[in-house]
Amino acid sequence: MKLMKAAIEEILSNIESATEFIDEETVNEFMKVLTESKNVFVMGAGRSGLVAKAFAMRLVHLGISAYVVGETISPAIYDDDCILAISGSGETNTIVSAVGIAKNRGSKALALTSYPESSLGKLADCVMKVKGRTKIDIDDEDYIKRQIDGNYVSVTPLGTAFELTSLIFLDGLIAELMQKMGKTEDDLKYRHTVLE
Amino acid sequence: MKLMKAAIEEILSNIESATEFIDEETVNEFMKVLTESKNVFVMGAGRSGLVAKAFAMRLVHLGISAYVVGETISPAIYDDDCILAISGSGETNTIVSAVGIAKNRGSKALALTSYPESSLGKLADCVMKVKGRTKIDIDDEDYIKRQIDGNYVSVTPLGTAFELTSLIFLDGLIAELMQKMGKTEDDLKYRHTVLE
Amino acid sequence: MKLMKAAIEEILSNIESATEFIDEETVNEFMKVLTESKNVFVMGAGRSGLVAKAFAMRLVHLGISAYVVGETISPAIYDDDCILAISGSGETNTIVSAVGIAKNRGSKALALTSYPESSLGKLADCVMKVKGRTKIDIDDEDYIKRQIDGNYVSVTPLGTAFELTSLIFLDGLIAELMQKMGKTEDDLKYRHTVLE
Amino acid sequence: MKLMKAAIEEILSNIESATEFIDEETVNEFMKVLTESKNVFVMGAGRSGLVAKAFAMRLVHLGISAYVVGETISPAIYDDDCILAISGSGETNTIVSAVGIAKNRGSKALALTSYPESSLGKLADCVMKVKGRTKIDIDDEDYIKRQIDGNYVSVTPLGTAFELTSLIFLDGLIAELMQKMGKTEDDLKYRHTVLE
Repeated sequence: MKLMKAAIEEILSNIESATEFIDEETVNEFMKVLTESKNVFVMGAGRSGLVAKAFAMRLVHLGISAYVVGETISPAIYDDDCILAISGSGETNTIVSAVGIAKNRGSKALALTSYPESSLGKLADCVMKVKGRTKIDIDDEDYIKRQIDGNYVSVTPLGTAFELTSLIFLDGLIAELMQKMGKTEDDLKYRHTVLE
Repeated sequence: MKLMKAAIEEILSNIESATEFIDEETVNEFMKVLTESKNVFVMGAGRSGLVAKAFAMRLVHLGISAYVVGETISPAIYDDDCILAISGSGETNTIVSAVGIAKNRGSKALALTSYPESSLGKLADCVMKVKGRTKIDIDDEDYIKRQIDGNYVSVTPLGTAFELTSLIFLDGLIAELMQKMGKTEDDLKYRHTVLE
Repeated sequence: MKLMKAAIEEILSNIESATEFIDEETVNEFMKVLTESKNVFVMGAGRSGLVAKAFAMRLVHLGISAYVVGETISPAIYDDDCILAISGSGETNTIVSAVGIAKNRGSKALALTSYPESSLGKLADCVMKVKGRTKIDIDDEDYIKRQIDGNYVSVTPLGTAFELTSLIFLDGLIAELMQKMGKTEDDLKYRHTVLE
Repeated sequence: MKLMKAAIEEILSNIESATEFIDEETVNEFMKVLTESKNVFVMGAGRSGLVAKAFAMRLVHLGISAYVVGETISPAIYDDDCILAISGSGETNTIVSAVGIAKNRGSKALALTSYPESSLGKLADCVMKVKGRTKIDIDDEDYIKRQIDGNYVSVTPLGTAFELTSLIFLDGLIAELMQKMGKTEDDLKYRHTVLE
């Protein structure tokens, strides 16, 4: 169980150290765009897509109209809408392409990425920098020291650290949004699906 | 290519013979419920679920608020909403259960099924009977005659005939709804997703 | 109910007239690629994506390993795999891009499209031409004559005719595959999900 | 930004305090069942379903055959398979029903829940207890003290704490599985989708 606990510690440590990158201005701009848009479209590839969906569910619970790009009922995006995209590298093909289309149609774009200088970062109106494990970390002496048994196997492989930190940041943002919108947990329950 | 053409003929023949069960009253009741509901929830299991989704997309294109049960952003169902369920047998567990919950919350229920006397059929406010291949057909002499090479292998296995007939009925209903709502193909394009 | 029946007739008529484009060689090549691939990846956008999923379900029932591009568990594609893509125009961005990647990795590509000369058509190793309603048809005198009440409103809006014809062609292909693989309806039931 | 940081702290604190419930035996039993099953079926409702999908992706990356209940290509479950279900309350209707069916067909069942004494907990062969915020916590003096501004608004509403703790436990389990199976991050990359 040593590796399981090491992985959990690694994840928690990444989240803690990543919070230093969150600044008040970005959080306020995110909330402003999310609450002032007619519809919020979310998107991400792979596990980042699941993070986007988890956030969309809570937006709906708050009474914000949200859609997942690619799901059945997602309509056209217009200039009073916004798109929120999640991509560690900021270079995922389908995401950069969709955000480009959205921007051309006049929508606002919010991004979570580890690379604000990426294609996605440059397209977005506002970027929340989410520290994940990066190539630099991988070659990093500190990183190696943190490895278990000196075997250099990553305990948080691929985008794990980025994805989990993004999810927890977005759940933190929900807490802020609840207060800003004057909502309680009962308001969220009111819109929570009952059919499953 | 003989079997492919035989299967296509079998499917077309089922659709043609199934249209005799469509009556004006049911069509009008379906349209009334769909246009008067605040939100339309659709559901089906397996390939019937895909039929439900294909219909939900067109409802959205028409400007009707539609949700797929089980997708990310589906909210709670209330008494000014309706649920449309698709099940050949009318006995699919998850569907009967969800429609029961919806009815208890005061929602209207529409059903497509081959068995109006099924659990789903009994729960629904209005049932569109969709003829599929049934057990009776399978033992039927005519059915056997229609088989290719006398090998009794079904060319439209499992629920194929029911699913395709349902889909085409619902696309037919879209044509009726377009006229009733005064919509043109351009109105549909206006809401068609642009992000894929 | 006049428009509903007109739409159904329009759909059936498109399917019938489209079958003349199916040729033995294409059908055989499709079956060869589908049965000789280690994994079959299917994809399509919007309602064409639902058609792709409906086909993937039946492939799985036949014991062929199939994946839907973008779903949770879809793995990497390799040179012993194939991709089957469905796009009326053959120009859908995400599809052309994914098929290009698949081809670069050595996979085979099968396509259903109304335009064999499209980007998708050119990338594919084998194309099944699926006639849908096209721009040419829309300006066509015959088409107008088929319209109800002379109101020029399409009773099969957007890609409806293409999508339904594709679905029925693929279900016809399943009948061929069943025979080629020596499978019966009971074999299909053996793999049909039981958890819904 | 006070609430966002408070929510993040609350989430991290729940994860830390929940780790005391993980025991070596449960972890080993989970790994044994996951690696010895022919196919692993995962399921969860709402955000717990997204957690299940995030885990299934990593299982696939490890070379374990995994399916998400309800997705297109999920086959029938048999007695050499297992199902892993995630439900905070352990009483979600569709989950208890599906796990019951799976058990009747001879499959093994693994569960993550806050309530090992729930219907799900009782059905499962092995339960990982995942502490979330419970009714007891809500009335708890400590909990209230942790609230911001004394407004008693939960900063981690609904199942947030349970869902995130489950996800991080399962990502920890992936680290253990990687070592047990002798896999490296490069092995995971080998199976990571390339088509998005």
